[in-house]
Amino acid sequence: MPLIPVLEQKTIHDLLLVLDLAGAFVFAISGAMLGVRRNLDIFGILVLSFAASSAGGIARDLLIGAVPPAAISDWRYLAVALAAGLLTFFWYSLIARLRTAILIFDAAGLALFAVAGTQKALAYGLNPLMAALLGMLTGIGGGIVRDLLVARTPAVLRSDLYALAGAGVCFGLRLMAIRHGWNLPVARPIESEDERE
Amino acid sequence: MPLIPVLEQKTIHDLLLVLDLAGAFVFAISGAMLGVRRNLDIFGILVLSFAASSAGGIARDLLIGAVPPAAISDWRYLAVALAAGLLTFFWYSLIARLRTAILIFDAAGLALFAVAGTQKALAYGLNPLMAALLGMLTGIGGGIVRDLLVARTPAVLRSDLYALAGAGVCFGLRLMAIRHGWNLPVARPIESEDERE
Amino acid sequence: MPLIPVLEQKTIHDLLLVLDLAGAFVFAISGAMLGVRRNLDIFGILVLSFAASSAGGIARDLLIGAVPPAAISDWRYLAVALAAGLLTFFWYSLIARLRTAILIFDAAGLALFAVAGTQKALAYGLNPLMAALLGMLTGIGGGIVRDLLVARTPAVLRSDLYALAGAGVCFGLRLMAIRHGWNLPVARPIESEDERE
Repeated sequence: MPLIPVLEQKTIHDLLLVLDLAGAFVFAISGAMLGVRRNLDIFGILVLSFAASSAGGIARDLLIGAVPPAAISDWRYLAVALAAGLLTFFWYSLIARLRTAILIFDAAGLALFAVAGTQKALAYGLNPLMAALLGMLTGIGGGIVRDLLVARTPAVLRSDLYALAGAGVCFGLRLMAIRHGWNLPVARPIESEDERE
Repeated sequence: MPLIPVLEQKTIHDLLLVLDLAGAFVFAISGAMLGVRRNLDIFGILVLSFAASSAGGIARDLLIGAVPPAAISDWRYLAVALAAGLLTFFWYSLIARLRTAILIFDAAGLALFAVAGTQKALAYGLNPLMAALLGMLTGIGGGIVRDLLVARTPAVLRSDLYALAGAGVCFGLRLMAIRHGWNLPVARPIESEDERE
Repeated sequence: MPLIPVLEQKTIHDLLLVLDLAGAFVFAISGAMLGVRRNLDIFGILVLSFAASSAGGIARDLLIGAVPPAAISDWRYLAVALAAGLLTFFWYSLIARLRTAILIFDAAGLALFAVAGTQKALAYGLNPLMAALLGMLTGIGGGIVRDLLVARTPAVLRSDLYALAGAGVCFGLRLMAIRHGWNLPVARPIESEDERE
């Protein structure tokens, strides 16, 4: 963190926040839909929404020592999760028709969280490999907790999402390269970036 | 924390401890009973007792950055959980007759933990809404982990305990109001408290 | 930590690392084998390897406030887990013949982790009883998460491993006695050690 100028910290922070909230929303919908299908009550559905949307980010924040986690200290995560949960609860038939869309939501949430998680881990000083791993764990954490809460083996462990996760990791590494680029002295030629990878 | 005078900190600390230990005891009994019904061995039963009694508090402490968590650093939580576990193991037939009582125990533990959790989160500087949420998560955390350990969907997500949890949140908010009252200058009229809510 | 001379800290650190990595390897194999038996894809198998090998250590590190946990900040834990996972994935038929060996691996991993966990908790200033408890929780944590990820009641809660866990605790207490011995002034007779226990 101390290596990044104040202005860029602000930009990175805003980017992280938007990615995180967007990921939280789509994961919350997937959590709420599972809750409805398993006949949970409204409270259970909202818990599943929040767990699906925040478990990954909370795990990441605990692991890098960023306590209290953003999902706990920032009310917007809760608001987004509850909004998605209530939306799904009251318009389930509408959202159920979007079944394929939900799968894409899930994958999008995974990718968004993987990028945001990688970026935040880098900002807290973890090395790139572990930051990418943490980004991936962050991405799949919400879905895993969501599935465990209804006592089923997490979908991400059964189906072929690993290619996507791999893509997320690559994306995270690319973002890292960009960040490294930000830190390069102006005189250094941009082409040298690829060599360092 | 720095806002509260030393004497009141002591009082709050004692109150938190008693609420926490009482909640731990009743949750440990519900954990041990589930363990016996699922034919776990004595070790499994004691693990379930401890997990049910401490998982919520441990989660709260990790989330607010109070490490090591009270349930780990204070032997009394372990002692209470093991006592409840052994009690249930050796006098199961007696305790099984108290089936309805157990459900009430469970609800009481949830309420006790919700209050203690809210109060501790407030003491660590979280804002009231998130403190109440954390109190609720604390309250249902033990029961969730207990149920997950025997691979079933947590009872709190299926049944209609949300009303109770809501009550717990209200109770936590009320406690908060009282605490805010403590911090009020003497000259300010008490009636203004409701307006701030 | 401040009580231990620098040289001994180094030795303890090395001992912890070797115990931890050895435990991580055997647990990762048990995780990967379960993944193969449950028809998880290669990504799921590797996640299960890492979860089984690192969940206990990560839980311990979070609870004692050692963030980021060793399993996240040190790439060797990941390398060991992935190696064990790939080994199991490509030579499953070979490893499946070693079924009894796997059970022994599992127990060995539990004991190794219990010792390493106890030692690290002591180094972070927890009292001996809680350090031993944390060592035991560390030892069984990986296996519990491994089993939960495929939605089954953790084996350690069902079968009679508690005697082994007990042995682990004893071993941890013994190590503690040794460490206390290191801190004894030379003039003090060794026989007094038993009395202090």
